[in-house]
Amino acid sequence: MTQSWWRDACQPVDHAAMEQARARQQQLTKPAGSLGQLETLALTLAGLQGRERPSLERVAITIFAGDHGVVEEGISAYPQAVTGQMLRNFVGGGAAISVLARQLDASLEVVDLGTIDPALALPGVRHLRLGAGTANFAQRPAMTDAQLRAALQAGRDSASRAAEAGAQLFIGGEMGIGNTTAAAAVASTLLGCPARELSGPGTGLDSAGVRHKAEVIERALVLHGLRADDPLQALACVGGFEIAALAGAYLACAQQGVAVLVDGFICSVAALVAVRLNPHCRAWLLFAHQGAEPGHQALLAALQAEPLLALGLRLGEGSGAALAVPLMRLACALHGQMATFAEAAVADRPA
Amino acid sequence: MTQSWWRDACQPVDHAAMEQARARQQQLTKPAGSLGQLETLALTLAGLQGRERPSLERVAITIFAGDHGVVEEGISAYPQAVTGQMLRNFVGGGAAISVLARQLDASLEVVDLGTIDPALALPGVRHLRLGAGTANFAQRPAMTDAQLRAALQAGRDSASRAAEAGAQLFIGGEMGIGNTTAAAAVASTLLGCPARELSGPGTGLDSAGVRHKAEVIERALVLHGLRADDPLQALACVGGFEIAALAGAYLACAQQGVAVLVDGFICSVAALVAVRLNPHCRAWLLFAHQGAEPGHQALLAALQAEPLLALGLRLGEGSGAALAVPLMRLACALHGQMATFAEAAVADRPA
Repeated sequence: MTQSWWRDACQPVDHAAMEQARARQQQLTKPAGSLGQLETLALTLAGLQGRERPSLERVAITIFAGDHGVVEEGISAYPQAVTGQMLRNFVGGGAAISVLARQLDASLEVVDLGTIDPALALPGVRHLRLGAGTANFAQRPAMTDAQLRAALQAGRDSASRAAEAGAQLFIGGEMGIGNTTAAAAVASTLLGCPARELSGPGTGLDSAGVRHKAEVIERALVLHGLRADDPLQALACVGGFEIAALAGAYLACAQQGVAVLVDGFICSVAALVAVRLNPHCRAWLLFAHQGAEPGHQALLAALQAEPLLALGLRLGEGSGAALAVPLMRLACALHGQMATFAEAAVADRPA
Repeated sequence: MTQSWWRDACQPVDHAAMEQARARQQQLTKPAGSLGQLETLALTLAGLQGRERPSLERVAITIFAGDHGVVEEGISAYPQAVTGQMLRNFVGGGAAISVLARQLDASLEVVDLGTIDPALALPGVRHLRLGAGTANFAQRPAMTDAQLRAALQAGRDSASRAAEAGAQLFIGGEMGIGNTTAAAAVASTLLGCPARELSGPGTGLDSAGVRHKAEVIERALVLHGLRADDPLQALACVGGFEIAALAGAYLACAQQGVAVLVDGFICSVAALVAVRLNPHCRAWLLFAHQGAEPGHQALLAALQAEPLLALGLRLGEGSGAALAVPLMRLACALHGQMATFAEAAVADRPA
């Protein structure tokens, strides 16, 4: 690939705004540090938004969906048809993320990168039709270079729409039966970690199913001869359309100055790909939650991420990130609206 | 004490409504269990509200404040005057809990049980004036039986006002310089656990300060000869007005059928007192967060509590509980508004 937009510079963090925010925080009527992670979060957002008092009114959510040929290997508890059915549910308002987007007053965009039904045409869904799902990576590369490039660009386009709409936070979600298998395969490659340590039940495999899934991944990694230092090759050979789109969206958000809230296991794999492609994007990534998928912890550790929530979530769709948005908004409200010791005539320590 | 209202029956949990909620949850368009703790939470609230689809529109927050004579022993980083100053800040809108109550559209009541300034008169604060703070429990019992009874009743009165206003959730907060010391002393007695394991920095003691605090508590426990099976004696001898009021409020909420969201370390001690006085109240107590105070984990374990958040909070004021309210509301929205597999025409597993 010659034209590598993802290596372009990311927006810088505004350290002066962070310092102003830090000075303000030290004057608020509370013991220093007593709001824990929410204090760090307010300072981080101040640095990303270039404002002493950040806010998160405008949140953009994009769901990227795609099917996975590797489902042929019997690695999912659900049939592939569910991917397309759930697209209808997203725009119909009945999916978890649809409910959450309404409650948060967030925009919700649904991008179909390629499902097994190439004729699928749903009002409100952007059908990009990169293919009838990926190829079965147990036998051949999941996608061509052209498909990979198109998927990355699709994520970038979503990020651009979010930035143009003035989004202060971008949440990427994913839907794709089989995508924890693709995500575990990519993570196993990039972390140099055995697939069995990164393979989990996904939507509901039993322990024999999880073992089989890890074996399918291990065989595929041998077949493709993947290297930890080539994230694009890993994406193309064992990734998924939606994982590539998420990575593209994260990179473009960092380049356009929109903070990202990363959801669970699959999104964290996309975040790892993004950081490996362009390490400076890391500053723009916030992490919502520690999910139930067992491999998530290793990914978060590799990304030095400190997620806000740990509720045993394993739904995807961006739902865990959406659930963390009110906490982030309250962190901004506390930072922006609390009185200082001087304003409230409260004695600060020492006595 | 002859008239022991706190032993009166608590409202029963509606198991039929819980079962209806469980049946609904199994039909929602998501893998079973994939919303983790939020699923359990929705079922619990269904049982407490007697509705298949619970909601949490009306939230009542009451801050109980009181001063602590034991501050004479040098166990706090802040001067006692801060308790009264913060009362002004609560009603003035500049404290963390004031900001959070506004954001949540929750009611905020401020009850002054007794601070060092007996002439303190602030518009919007209920001044009950049980005493100019408690006595120094390093030398004598913190309060008389009459004061203890009045403090428990003050909590009960707040719970009754919340119930009359139709509150679906009650949050008790606390403010009182020195109150982590009183709370640790009560917890040490009821858990049969050394004070040093339950003593932490509070608003900001250094390690020498924490050691001194634990020693003050250990000496007081010897002085008063407290027993684990007498929670009222523990409250009277080493507790605080606001801790007793919180326990009274929790018990009365359970008796009147209002769910309670317990905040951090001090509120969890009050919850432990309440459960020891009337074990049936436990069903009405939900736990918001694992705080930074090191003793909190032992308390949560003793209460078999699974808090929603762990953000390193140590502010008090009910702030940690308030921060968990949006998550609970989203859990209700997901449970109530998501489509079923049949409604959305999505294939459930098995394939």
